[in-house]
Amino acid sequence: MAKNIQDPPVLSPSAPRQALLEAYTRVRRFSEQLCAPLVIEDYVIQSMPDVSPTRWHLAHTSWFFETFVLLPHVPAYESPHPQYAYLFNSYYNSVGERHCRPKRGLISRPTVQETYAYRQYVDERISDFLLTCDENVLQKVAPVVTLGIHHEQQHQELMVTDIKHVLSCNPLHPVYLEQPTYPAQPPATLEWISYPEELAWLGYAGDGFFYDNEGPRHREFVDAYQLGSRLITNGEYLQFIEDGGYQNPLLWLSSGWNTVQAEQWQAPLYWEKQDGRWMMMTLSGLRAVEPAEPVCHVSFYEADAYARWADARLATEAEWELAARLLPIEGNFVENQTFHPVPLATSTTSELPLQMYGDVWEWTQSAYLPYRGYRPAPGALGEYNGKFMCNQFVLRGGSCATSITHIRPTYRNFFPPDARWQFMGVRLAREV
Amino acid sequence: MAKNIQDPPVLSPSAPRQALLEAYTRVRRFSEQLCAPLVIEDYVIQSMPDVSPTRWHLAHTSWFFETFVLLPHVPAYESPHPQYAYLFNSYYNSVGERHCRPKRGLISRPTVQETYAYRQYVDERISDFLLTCDENVLQKVAPVVTLGIHHEQQHQELMVTDIKHVLSCNPLHPVYLEQPTYPAQPPATLEWISYPEELAWLGYAGDGFFYDNEGPRHREFVDAYQLGSRLITNGEYLQFIEDGGYQNPLLWLSSGWNTVQAEQWQAPLYWEKQDGRWMMMTLSGLRAVEPAEPVCHVSFYEADAYARWADARLATEAEWELAARLLPIEGNFVENQTFHPVPLATSTTSELPLQMYGDVWEWTQSAYLPYRGYRPAPGALGEYNGKFMCNQFVLRGGSCATSITHIRPTYRNFFPPDARWQFMGVRLAREV
Amino acid sequence: MAKNIQDPPVLSPSAPRQALLEAYTRVRRFSEQLCAPLVIEDYVIQSMPDVSPTRWHLAHTSWFFETFVLLPHVPAYESPHPQYAYLFNSYYNSVGERHCRPKRGLISRPTVQETYAYRQYVDERISDFLLTCDENVLQKVAPVVTLGIHHEQQHQELMVTDIKHVLSCNPLHPVYLEQPTYPAQPPATLEWISYPEELAWLGYAGDGFFYDNEGPRHREFVDAYQLGSRLITNGEYLQFIEDGGYQNPLLWLSSGWNTVQAEQWQAPLYWEKQDGRWMMMTLSGLRAVEPAEPVCHVSFYEADAYARWADARLATEAEWELAARLLPIEGNFVENQTFHPVPLATSTTSELPLQMYGDVWEWTQSAYLPYRGYRPAPGALGEYNGKFMCNQFVLRGGSCATSITHIRPTYRNFFPPDARWQFMGVRLAREV
Amino acid sequence: MAKNIQDPPVLSPSAPRQALLEAYTRVRRFSEQLCAPLVIEDYVIQSMPDVSPTRWHLAHTSWFFETFVLLPHVPAYESPHPQYAYLFNSYYNSVGERHCRPKRGLISRPTVQETYAYRQYVDERISDFLLTCDENVLQKVAPVVTLGIHHEQQHQELMVTDIKHVLSCNPLHPVYLEQPTYPAQPPATLEWISYPEELAWLGYAGDGFFYDNEGPRHREFVDAYQLGSRLITNGEYLQFIEDGGYQNPLLWLSSGWNTVQAEQWQAPLYWEKQDGRWMMMTLSGLRAVEPAEPVCHVSFYEADAYARWADARLATEAEWELAARLLPIEGNFVENQTFHPVPLATSTTSELPLQMYGDVWEWTQSAYLPYRGYRPAPGALGEYNGKFMCNQFVLRGGSCATSITHIRPTYRNFFPPDARWQFMGVRLAREV
Repeated sequence: MAKNIQDPPVLSPSAPRQALLEAYTRVRRFSEQLCAPLVIEDYVIQSMPDVSPTRWHLAHTSWFFETFVLLPHVPAYESPHPQYAYLFNSYYNSVGERHCRPKRGLISRPTVQETYAYRQYVDERISDFLLTCDENVLQKVAPVVTLGIHHEQQHQELMVTDIKHVLSCNPLHPVYLEQPTYPAQPPATLEWISYPEELAWLGYAGDGFFYDNEGPRHREFVDAYQLGSRLITNGEYLQFIEDGGYQNPLLWLSSGWNTVQAEQWQAPLYWEKQDGRWMMMTLSGLRAVEPAEPVCHVSFYEADAYARWADARLATEAEWELAARLLPIEGNFVENQTFHPVPLATSTTSELPLQMYGDVWEWTQSAYLPYRGYRPAPGALGEYNGKFMCNQFVLRGGSCATSITHIRPTYRNFFPPDARWQFMGVRLAREV
Repeated sequence: MAKNIQDPPVLSPSAPRQALLEAYTRVRRFSEQLCAPLVIEDYVIQSMPDVSPTRWHLAHTSWFFETFVLLPHVPAYESPHPQYAYLFNSYYNSVGERHCRPKRGLISRPTVQETYAYRQYVDERISDFLLTCDENVLQKVAPVVTLGIHHEQQHQELMVTDIKHVLSCNPLHPVYLEQPTYPAQPPATLEWISYPEELAWLGYAGDGFFYDNEGPRHREFVDAYQLGSRLITNGEYLQFIEDGGYQNPLLWLSSGWNTVQAEQWQAPLYWEKQDGRWMMMTLSGLRAVEPAEPVCHVSFYEADAYARWADARLATEAEWELAARLLPIEGNFVENQTFHPVPLATSTTSELPLQMYGDVWEWTQSAYLPYRGYRPAPGALGEYNGKFMCNQFVLRGGSCATSITHIRPTYRNFFPPDARWQFMGVRLAREV
Repeated sequence: MAKNIQDPPVLSPSAPRQALLEAYTRVRRFSEQLCAPLVIEDYVIQSMPDVSPTRWHLAHTSWFFETFVLLPHVPAYESPHPQYAYLFNSYYNSVGERHCRPKRGLISRPTVQETYAYRQYVDERISDFLLTCDENVLQKVAPVVTLGIHHEQQHQELMVTDIKHVLSCNPLHPVYLEQPTYPAQPPATLEWISYPEELAWLGYAGDGFFYDNEGPRHREFVDAYQLGSRLITNGEYLQFIEDGGYQNPLLWLSSGWNTVQAEQWQAPLYWEKQDGRWMMMTLSGLRAVEPAEPVCHVSFYEADAYARWADARLATEAEWELAARLLPIEGNFVENQTFHPVPLATSTTSELPLQMYGDVWEWTQSAYLPYRGYRPAPGALGEYNGKFMCNQFVLRGGSCATSITHIRPTYRNFFPPDARWQFMGVRLAREV
Repeated sequence: MAKNIQDPPVLSPSAPRQALLEAYTRVRRFSEQLCAPLVIEDYVIQSMPDVSPTRWHLAHTSWFFETFVLLPHVPAYESPHPQYAYLFNSYYNSVGERHCRPKRGLISRPTVQETYAYRQYVDERISDFLLTCDENVLQKVAPVVTLGIHHEQQHQELMVTDIKHVLSCNPLHPVYLEQPTYPAQPPATLEWISYPEELAWLGYAGDGFFYDNEGPRHREFVDAYQLGSRLITNGEYLQFIEDGGYQNPLLWLSSGWNTVQAEQWQAPLYWEKQDGRWMMMTLSGLRAVEPAEPVCHVSFYEADAYARWADARLATEAEWELAARLLPIEGNFVENQTFHPVPLATSTTSELPLQMYGDVWEWTQSAYLPYRGYRPAPGALGEYNGKFMCNQFVLRGGSCATSITHIRPTYRNFFPPDARWQFMGVRLAREV
């Protein structure tokens, strides 16, 4: 795995030619660096419907640039493999027929090598195009390229979480990347940080890149609240388990309790008990559960039940965003290459909340819904966000699998309440 | 079916003894009046997991009074059938084991006659108790009896919608209650009524009965908006159908589109095409679809897709509540015994929105979530509302199967986005 | 329940007019006598896809006579309810569309009373017709009426087993018919009765009624074999359970073992352990498992596994038929109204096998396949037997729910290997 | 793909040391030759639960020799990967826990290369062992090695049929091995060859290798019958399709008709209509359906329905075996490397049935049941055949994916009646 990964700049739609190409190239290379530890067999497996094979991610992100940049804007462009459009379209109903998502793992060809050749072909054409196109074409195409860069960063996060799931299905517990273990002390006591009531402006305001679901900027009234000073740890979550948290229906949402029983959940995803001791599958293989680490791979149901057990609640996304506005974007992101949340040093304290960015996505109690006045963009790219605004909850802050250049205070991630395979964790909130 | 149904008063927890007993008796009798058109065979069928047999509703509502009033407060009380507690508990995990919901239709005994005897037994004991208990006991028990009365009204609505579903499964199209047909003219053009922005107080404020999910009273900022002056009609919905609404994925939420395809939806529930003509199953049997009637038995997905097609959106529950505050509670409720939404007279116009109460529940775009500061009540009755706050959407205003004394401007009904068997319809909203 | 039930004669296709009508009437009445203990609610429930509601059986058997006798042969006949043809056709694809089998329990109308009226209507028309039709018409129609009589007897057996399943789903353990309990001693030791090798003629030969699957008569070579002198008892089967029979995969067919695990079988159907003691649901309610009774409600998988555990095997249907030819048809049939297998007196011994007829159907190791030269009858009645010749096993000898006039040495019953809700038991065989 | 494949000799359990090792080596090499056209990605995919990844077949067959030869007989042997026992056990319950069959496609490691290394390790140890072990050890171990050789041949057939299924799931229609196309003329008219009645000895008699399900040798009476002179062709089957065979329930077994409707079968597996023309996926890619070829990839249900449509029936396995005894074992086997059934030359005629061996397995109408006196072998190897004797039908004669040295007149293959992914076809029979 390459070591000196530099961040792509936050691109505005008007990024100049060279900067755009550099950002493009850097992101495209990073996808390939993430695959360096894999053997060919790892690339083709789909371990559950939510997971896509790594090879699919590599091809799909290239198809995105081919479909939305090269085909509409480069008259002479011919796809080397027009039939890939069917295989590697994800969910853009308006772009044409597509291969059924749960069947992505049934396809052995194109091979991994052919997929890399396809990537390279697209990269060369994009590079030629960006360097030579007219300025007015560039103005039109730059926002799409920028969207494609951020789209690829999203798939990079999925590549990390998906390959973790694939490897976790193997009783041999394969290792993606060896990491040193470290002795860890429990972090400082959780404090409560207070915020006053506010008729606040929320949503993205600026001239950089943002997803349509982060706007429009709009007002919400937010009552006074308190936020936990740090993430909940494995050690704290173990107390919930040991207190019978998974056996007490009164702690759970009704559909959450049904899920606990149907799936026989007894702990976060990837935890297993061996000889009375909790172990967890990580991208460094099977390890003992470390109490000082932030708890991870819990569903919304579990986060919500934990909060109820702890006599608190999850934050709303507005509360989270107001607190995050004040903080620098720094933390344990994918560029660190830990591929795992890391403990807070025992001595770390702060007047401001810690671990807001990176480590784990933080479940909020907000359903994923459109902001006041939201309209999806016209055309195929309008299918990006809006159509998923149903039966999902918002997560904020990014994780150890997110690029630091990908996150913003207004960034809204979203998953169904039973999803667990992303790096998802818990921060508490409460009324004053 | 009895004709002179009088409304139970809106009860406050401090209702005096006689008024409480009268309200109790009136509601209990009404449940039985709703069953008058049924044959015994109708009482036992569960046509889908969401539906309960009528006999179950009759027994469960009695069990509620036995469990939460008689057993805790009448020392000498002995249940005539202690094993009913297992059969007729619905979802109160804290009260003990319960019979699996989807199996309610497998139970032929107790018979309908035995169920009525059980109801009568409970009624006599409640009556004795309410007339004779100490005043301080009455103070403690009155809120629970009042809750039981409203609980029974909810089950009355379900009895109507469930028996409609049961009868709709029968190719013979049985009739629950004959109703005269009427010639209907299309209603007046839909107008848009404007409301200014407001930092509003929302949720129940008063000293009558309300459900815990209607509070706490709290502030929300609501931007300026417009509301459609009336409900959407079958005629308007038919245009959506004929314009290919059910074939165009771009109009639908992603999970909605999946449902349309999996369930092969082509029209609202209960509609079927016969010889090229749309017919609908009603509680008066199979009838031609009447263009002037409010459209009914549509899911949230369909309401949302219709709104998108109409270049509008659904209202938020805050918007609906602010508009409803100003209106008298009147409309086509279950006391009318139409058991069906009715057309608006063509000449009806108003500066205020029409049909806000009664006819059909109105889907909002608000996910069903706790209000700021919400805490469920302690004990078993706390399982009433809060644990369903996930993957459901709020509906407002009541329907032709709701009691007029059951509804309030702050009343929050909720169902998953694919539910259709309630009387559910569409009102549009939009930005100014 | 009526007490003096006389047997209908075994009818040949050429039965004279009066005898035919008497047989018809006697069988029709018996269906109704079987329903005497039921309440209306019992008639409408379908507790699993294999089970039909009692009301359906009553209507379907009447539909059979209407469809195959009255409509084709009585020119003036008009069905009072032509739409019943859709509801009460079972599986005759060639007769027209039919209501989906698993939905039989969703239909509350026609009511039980209407169903009896329909029966009576058909009975009167059949009676008129049989008394007045021309002799040559009678010759043509008598075989169909006779088939209808036997068809109704089959449904009588299903009515008994289906209502048992319906009542068993009720945690209240309702009683169909109280029966005295009796002290029972274990039967005499199981002996082995030897039969020599034979090139045998098998299948029906005679001029009475038989089903097409009992012919053509044909030769099979049967090697020398031994047959157990009596049925396996609950006491013997308990030893298999206590020896870990349900935990040892080596005793089971592969698909049987999968079923044991998926269904978590630990004992025959209707057995449940209460306070460490095996109880069983019977048509007389919940009772202790009686060791002396023949084991009942076991699947082919369990019968086969038991036989393997006992170092024996099940008989082939040829072996069973050769042994049964020599025996009088007598035993514990439905006319006894025990509705349950009965223990053999301890002192009973015989040179010939005991309990071959009645009590429980005996699983054979023969797959249900056509005999050499088998051709289904032309027309709709040809759908009766042949199309089920796949993935089923043959059972022989009738049960306590079978009419004594319905059984023959050549009679072939058949069910899939995981079916258990019929009265099914075990007789062992082995090589010499 | 290697060209000069020589047949392994038919081994008797007492094969001398060198011959045994040569046979072992030849079969092991052939498995690897079959994989030569594959890319690594092809090895890991499981396209349906019945299919195993090629890599799994390669490892499982090696595990077989390790488990049943090396571990019990070579005291110093240590498995290089003891955990493979869990991953590559197929269904031997008595050998220990095993990885769930439908999850074989979720495992990316061991890699293909590691799997080949494991094979080589086992091969070297087996080779050393067979060359050096004591003669009395050899006598004990030779039957197990021989069983392992035949076991591997079975998996070779599955490798061919499984990779065909995997590639067929790919919309790109990848090619396993290019084959020349050939113009083909329809074969000569189908003739009927007559056989007299016979009290026959059936089952294996000899001193070569055979599976336990081919014995014991026993007598059956077989009436006179006729057998079709050749296999049914695509052209003949197309007439069945065009005559509405897939739309007529009267031609089908009941469970077959359910399958036709549930799976929406309209033609054999791998057929698809393009622009009104029937195409078929083959191991040489997508090709037009060739009318002269034997029809292939039909289920028992389809073979049975075709026979009924053709006013004939399928043969019993006894009838097939009696006819086959008289014929030399020759035909289109896997050694030909056509990987597809081939047409009969138009001019070919014979007094004896043609195409009995090779090309396609021939469905019989015989359920797969134990022969009289059958007992599985003791120990784990006894789990090989007997436990599958339920709900399967027998096929005879081998196919273009079978080794010529693997087949015998008494060889019994078996599959459930809805299986289609093997090379399975149709020969007709009828009464005289």
